[in-house]
Amino acid sequence: MRTIEWLDGKVRLIDQRQLPRELVLEECTDCRQVAQAIKEMHIRGAPAIGAAAAFGLALTAYHSKAASPEELLQELEEAARLLRTTRPTAVNLFWAIDRVLSKARAIESDVVALKEAVIQEAQAIAEEDVNTNKRMGAYGAELIEDGYNILTHCNTGALATVDYGTALGVVRTAWEQGKRIHVWVDETRPRLQGARLTAWELKQLGIPATLVADNAAGLLMRSGRVDIVLVGADRIAANGDVANKIGTYNLAVLAREHGLPFYSVAPTSTVDLSIPSGEHIPIEERDAEEVTHIRGIPIAPEGMPVYNPAFDVTPHRYVTGIVTEKGIVYPPFELNLKKVLRG
Amino acid sequence: MRTIEWLDGKVRLIDQRQLPRELVLEECTDCRQVAQAIKEMHIRGAPAIGAAAAFGLALTAYHSKAASPEELLQELEEAARLLRTTRPTAVNLFWAIDRVLSKARAIESDVVALKEAVIQEAQAIAEEDVNTNKRMGAYGAELIEDGYNILTHCNTGALATVDYGTALGVVRTAWEQGKRIHVWVDETRPRLQGARLTAWELKQLGIPATLVADNAAGLLMRSGRVDIVLVGADRIAANGDVANKIGTYNLAVLAREHGLPFYSVAPTSTVDLSIPSGEHIPIEERDAEEVTHIRGIPIAPEGMPVYNPAFDVTPHRYVTGIVTEKGIVYPPFELNLKKVLRG
Repeated sequence: MRTIEWLDGKVRLIDQRQLPRELVLEECTDCRQVAQAIKEMHIRGAPAIGAAAAFGLALTAYHSKAASPEELLQELEEAARLLRTTRPTAVNLFWAIDRVLSKARAIESDVVALKEAVIQEAQAIAEEDVNTNKRMGAYGAELIEDGYNILTHCNTGALATVDYGTALGVVRTAWEQGKRIHVWVDETRPRLQGARLTAWELKQLGIPATLVADNAAGLLMRSGRVDIVLVGADRIAANGDVANKIGTYNLAVLAREHGLPFYSVAPTSTVDLSIPSGEHIPIEERDAEEVTHIRGIPIAPEGMPVYNPAFDVTPHRYVTGIVTEKGIVYPPFELNLKKVLRG
Repeated sequence: MRTIEWLDGKVRLIDQRQLPRELVLEECTDCRQVAQAIKEMHIRGAPAIGAAAAFGLALTAYHSKAASPEELLQELEEAARLLRTTRPTAVNLFWAIDRVLSKARAIESDVVALKEAVIQEAQAIAEEDVNTNKRMGAYGAELIEDGYNILTHCNTGALATVDYGTALGVVRTAWEQGKRIHVWVDETRPRLQGARLTAWELKQLGIPATLVADNAAGLLMRSGRVDIVLVGADRIAANGDVANKIGTYNLAVLAREHGLPFYSVAPTSTVDLSIPSGEHIPIEERDAEEVTHIRGIPIAPEGMPVYNPAFDVTPHRYVTGIVTEKGIVYPPFELNLKKVLRG
């Protein structure tokens, strides 16, 4: 089962807020529902929200009653505006919207052709994502030796993508190659994507894994129980700075302090050459309640002020390499990211 | 109100598991109850569990029906054995037990005198703790400048001690001196002592504070929003290595990476000159359920393997200084800790 799927006029997705307790499927029939599902994190993970946004536009096209291509294009631009307001950090969202819109803008013939082009482009984005992930898995698995202990953060598995996963896709490929590996799963506060989603995925796959509080990373590294750190990315600047789930930067600093390799696994659609460095990446701040409550239960004094940034930026000097579907990119990132993106 | 108090044959303590929802008081009438309260963390914090253990022995003495000093001493030794099994890392527990027992062993006259000596020594330990904390507060406050942003981890306030606090005692003194400060409160997974206890204490004291997930520390430091890191300690080895709440080591590495001062605030009773370095400090591992459940609600797949170390060790090279009640100790710690302890 895919994390998100096009079902002829409907979009079916896994409502990840309910995992691991329950596997709940949600069906969206208009773009507004998709936008809400992204904003409220029914679906999350940079590649998955890219595909979701594309399908949001596909729903707009499919159900449109527009009489002319111009009218439909206007509806699509409006839907795109709504989708762009959902989450600011992951660039895949904007990339997918732009890709579908530019396809749409190239069609001038008639409404039916435009509808078909939009829906096909959204489906292509979703299809490509799965292949991209498998290619990243193959490249990345070369970094994983038999017996490795891999530390990972947040969820970068099938649930963060259309299927298969980015950093967890690398883990999966290494496992499928018969390497005996073990994964340390950071629980990933505040939203616990590690405890809820990564733990659940690894359990389903039968890959040996142990859940830890995010606070345990330093102790694990210092005691020699980590061989490599693999994370995803929500946006990578032209110089190789990586925005990813809050806490990633802590891991990168710790990895370097312990001489451990630190890799980000992300499709080239996550690279944003339009911004020179991580300072320019907008960092989403989310509700205080993500920190003060767990499943509605308060764990802090009422009214306590909270700062809840959803992401942080890891400067490129802490990044050993970036695993993409076109190969592993090493420093100098500024040069090599451009080469890979244009190649 | 004190965290723990002797009430003529009873020990009254705050059951911290219920905070911040409810201020629940618990009364113990025998040493077994005290041991359970320590083990199950109704009371926690290195100085507080030291005082609790001393009061456990005081209860044994108070209610004893022993006919001879020898018989009472045997009962005390047995109670001490039980208390020593509760928690392995914080040395204050062992320090307080040894201090009461050695006082007891010096009394040979009669049972009544022995009982009185034990009870008095336990009360002295509790009294001294409050004074010790205020002295540490005065020394440590010199490190805090007007306008400082202080990052702290776990709970080191009145609740971690008999009263006033260690690292949070420093914050409190600086605030009482009129310095305009702000505290970043790490929530401190898995047991959330920061979110539940430190946030609650700072709110009561009216000291400006903001709660963050532990994962936010790197971002805060990198964006220049932290001026100093203040933590407590559960055991300090002869070379200055500091065992403290899991995640402390992460903060120490991050602090050094950002050129920020990192201080441990702890009474000299936390220093264990009998062990040369942090490698020899036993690190308590606690139940998986602390990570997989919050207030009984599962947040991870059933049966997920968990590693839950309660503490980590920060090597002395990351420690800027150790604030004790006898002054601030700076490197070389091996030499200077000995000087302070003997001076």
